[in-house]
Amino acid sequence: MVKIAIMGFGTVGSGVAEVLETNAERIQKNAATPFDVKYIMDIRDFSGHRYEDKFIKDFSIIENDPEVSVVVETIGGTGLAYDFTKRALLAGKSVVTSNKELVATHGSELLALAKEKNLNYLFEASVGGGIPIIRPISQCLAANEIDEIYGILNGTSNYVLTQMIQNGLTLDTAVKQAQEKGYAEADPTADIGGSDACRKICILSSLSFGRHIYPQQVPTEGITCVTLEDVNNARNKGYKIKHLGRAVRMADGKIASYVSPHLVRCDGLLANVEGVYNAIVVRGNAIGDVMFYGPGAGKLPTASAVVADIIDCAKHFTARKHIDWKEGGDFIAADPDELESCWYVRAAVTAAKAQELLGEIQIITSGEDTSDGCIAFTTAKMSLNKARAKFEALNTASAFRLLD
Amino acid sequence: MVKIAIMGFGTVGSGVAEVLETNAERIQKNAATPFDVKYIMDIRDFSGHRYEDKFIKDFSIIENDPEVSVVVETIGGTGLAYDFTKRALLAGKSVVTSNKELVATHGSELLALAKEKNLNYLFEASVGGGIPIIRPISQCLAANEIDEIYGILNGTSNYVLTQMIQNGLTLDTAVKQAQEKGYAEADPTADIGGSDACRKICILSSLSFGRHIYPQQVPTEGITCVTLEDVNNARNKGYKIKHLGRAVRMADGKIASYVSPHLVRCDGLLANVEGVYNAIVVRGNAIGDVMFYGPGAGKLPTASAVVADIIDCAKHFTARKHIDWKEGGDFIAADPDELESCWYVRAAVTAAKAQELLGEIQIITSGEDTSDGCIAFTTAKMSLNKARAKFEALNTASAFRLLD
Repeated sequence: MVKIAIMGFGTVGSGVAEVLETNAERIQKNAATPFDVKYIMDIRDFSGHRYEDKFIKDFSIIENDPEVSVVVETIGGTGLAYDFTKRALLAGKSVVTSNKELVATHGSELLALAKEKNLNYLFEASVGGGIPIIRPISQCLAANEIDEIYGILNGTSNYVLTQMIQNGLTLDTAVKQAQEKGYAEADPTADIGGSDACRKICILSSLSFGRHIYPQQVPTEGITCVTLEDVNNARNKGYKIKHLGRAVRMADGKIASYVSPHLVRCDGLLANVEGVYNAIVVRGNAIGDVMFYGPGAGKLPTASAVVADIIDCAKHFTARKHIDWKEGGDFIAADPDELESCWYVRAAVTAAKAQELLGEIQIITSGEDTSDGCIAFTTAKMSLNKARAKFEALNTASAFRLLD
Repeated sequence: MVKIAIMGFGTVGSGVAEVLETNAERIQKNAATPFDVKYIMDIRDFSGHRYEDKFIKDFSIIENDPEVSVVVETIGGTGLAYDFTKRALLAGKSVVTSNKELVATHGSELLALAKEKNLNYLFEASVGGGIPIIRPISQCLAANEIDEIYGILNGTSNYVLTQMIQNGLTLDTAVKQAQEKGYAEADPTADIGGSDACRKICILSSLSFGRHIYPQQVPTEGITCVTLEDVNNARNKGYKIKHLGRAVRMADGKIASYVSPHLVRCDGLLANVEGVYNAIVVRGNAIGDVMFYGPGAGKLPTASAVVADIIDCAKHFTARKHIDWKEGGDFIAADPDELESCWYVRAAVTAAKAQELLGEIQIITSGEDTSDGCIAFTTAKMSLNKARAKFEALNTASAFRLLD
């Protein structure tokens, strides 16, 4: 019998308790041991709850109970969660989390501490909700040098873009609808502004390339700059606008990571990733491209990934899992604005002027039929560093990369 | 240093040697040990080859060498491969394979033998080439009861269908082209006829549901019955024809498995899986639908999956991996012809006659514009057991399920 403590009884934490109970038989079979949730820690009052007897408010009860061998951290953030995770590891307990902010910010430190104590710190649920991605990268693709990783990493912003594309809603209306449906929080900034996707590409990048990439090293653009004109222009060119996090290994071995809207081809796989679903593409030097798709958030999908990690802890009490990366720094981060792409541009200029500055362009619309009076076109491949001043000189309203 | 023997130096076996050499640094880091290919066993003569010194023809050399701890079986088939795999396990060596026929036929026996000897028998490369799927099902989805699994499991037949859909090639021409490009063998029966996909759905089904499903329990239809008329009719309805293996847990807990062409919606993810790529969808009771996509075959992708298993063996010499299923039998197999679907039907009848027998139908073509003079329509949901006699009475040329 493995005794567990759950810290934070919100959506994911309560989902973990539910999955452990609902699928107890399957879980016990796969782990070769039953599990018991001994404590649930939450600052709120849960008197009358069916788990009433398990609730505690004081972390030191968990910390000092030698029976607890796995701690589930679903508190979120980098405050208490950081403190409690360190103390749990120091107290000899493996930790499992869905907290992408903590892993993206302090992952290398916490992984090093877990290694030192011969424990596990696992975080499958931190990226892509329930989608298996951390384990596949670290194990299944272990024979590959990873060259690139990118994907639709935030379900809320993908839902908003899907509504704009399929139903012609404006961004504001689509965000309100997402809030009504519970897909977006009251303050949707982290989703819509891109910082949630930024944390996730940090985790994927660190895991794929072995050195911590920190959020402040990842230029991040959300979807607030995407308009219905952009959506329509993209459609007329055979593309959809998707919000991607992306990390690329450059020729010098440094890693260029960034988050921004992209135009993806309608006949490609990412174009059909709709609503709150996520998808992540990994490019390995032996395997080529593989893609992982599924629900990027949600109580039970995310909880099922947490529980898979709990099972893995139980199977690896003696031989810890090899999931690891080292400290990062300036020496590892390349400037993503050096990455070359074809660009989609919407601007209040003449085609002649655009061509004069940018060279060969392909016109999508001359601006006569559009509500904003802007022309839209695509360019040849160039880096943002080469294009930026020209985009500014052209009074550019939108400029997004085309995914290769 | 972990010493390996490779049995069978064909496409996959030679790819394994290549990946081990090319990505040696990454592999050693992930496995925390270097690897050495001590023997390569092949009946052919490889004198002058750069690995000349490693080649042997006699299995007993591997069997009797205590230094060899991992054996790679890329011989294929159920003859020598079966014998050598058993003997390698009995001699205390873990075995890694890409041999889907052997796993689909004797998996439960070989897994039981591996368990008894506290060794690993791993086969990530047996399904979906390099796509991570065996490990994700057994580990990442370990907290889920799996309800259904299906996918595009054969790259050759998917290439042929893609050529028919995109370029209007006939089946015969597309098969010839696949052979010219090296995507199909001289005798393409196993791919085109569906038995390769059958073996793969057996493995996925056994792993997902815990009991061996044997190839003879899986009704299997290839793509030879698909015509260009079917392709065009499907397109007119917003669908593409894809060849799927599928396994469903029925209400009584039994498993219905089968292989056949399906109509899938053009705006769904499977529709954009083109050419030799594979994709597998797993439906769990907590996670919902997740999909795994990638190259379904090919030397280096498949080899990279084999090498991931080799790494896993090296990390699990003491605590073996829990990948397992029990013996099957009639008690576990449900009749897939009881599964209900909407059907696409092409038949040389009148719409009135079709409606009289099948109830409400939706006409795709009245037959006036088509080269075969057949009408095409879709039906309401019904099982094949209920529909079969009616399809026969209607002179049906093609009848394929619509994927829900």
